[in-house]
Amino acid sequence: MTLVDELLAANEAYVAGFSASGLKVRPIRHLAVLTCMDSRYTAQGVMGFALGDVHVIRNAGGRVTSDAIRSLALSAALLGTRGCIVIHHTNCGLFGATNEGLRRAVLEYSGATTDIEDFHPIADLDESVREDVERLRARPEFPSDYEIVGFTYDVETGRLRHIV
Amino acid sequence: MTLVDELLAANEAYVAGFSASGLKVRPIRHLAVLTCMDSRYTAQGVMGFALGDVHVIRNAGGRVTSDAIRSLALSAALLGTRGCIVIHHTNCGLFGATNEGLRRAVLEYSGATTDIEDFHPIADLDESVREDVERLRARPEFPSDYEIVGFTYDVETGRLRHIV
Repeated sequence: MTLVDELLAANEAYVAGFSASGLKVRPIRHLAVLTCMDSRYTAQGVMGFALGDVHVIRNAGGRVTSDAIRSLALSAALLGTRGCIVIHHTNCGLFGATNEGLRRAVLEYSGATTDIEDFHPIADLDESVREDVERLRARPEFPSDYEIVGFTYDVETGRLRHIV
Repeated sequence: MTLVDELLAANEAYVAGFSASGLKVRPIRHLAVLTCMDSRYTAQGVMGFALGDVHVIRNAGGRVTSDAIRSLALSAALLGTRGCIVIHHTNCGLFGATNEGLRRAVLEYSGATTDIEDFHPIADLDESVREDVERLRARPEFPSDYEIVGFTYDVETGRLRHIV
């Protein structure tokens, strides 16, 4: 069975249980979550959000990159979100890494080249949350009443810790 | 109740039901999903993936941006994923938009400035999936046996459609 066939078969089961929810494109809770691509948790799960509640932006680390800013700006200006929850997590692949080491790993894996300059490694978990929340707060795309909060998530306990 | 207090209270309920899963940082299914930040579906849900199975990268549109490439390169080189599933969806906020229109919306909302140049609008849904899969296939960070497939997701029916 190919990957495509397998995914379509799994989706058939989802479709069979799917009921038109009436959910609209604008998130009900007027919030966006920015967190890591890590497989072990979902943004909805750890904070008890339902489908339709929040935008979920995920990248390696949950970092405030230019693309995360693009997504959050569109989420706010176009689709009515009024705040962002930034969550970085324990046991992240970026933790303790360096740009040089990550670049080497990518080159070794591909056997080719890369023009990626900043892999956004994380030296200190709490500090990376603080840094990213500050970066977002300093952006001109978000007015002063746009709320930005930051947490760490512990993959061993399921617990959020408020940082900023 | 502040937003932070509310999120911590919701997380307490999650922690109470949390059991140490033994899941590791490397995704079990060796796959990454790249899809939109849209609130109405989860990548896991529509394809029946469990926690621990796949990396999930989400941004406005599910587009292959430089940050998505960074995340996918790290997912592959560092954490053993060997393929990517790209999913764009119907009724996306980016559909039918232009960079000029999106830029105007962001400026009107913030009342300030922005240096975002490309908001990655979507003119044609199937075509944006094809374009993004091609863009990813052309990247040097992924060797020839790295599998990349593309789907659309219909938010009204729950159905995936294979594009490429």
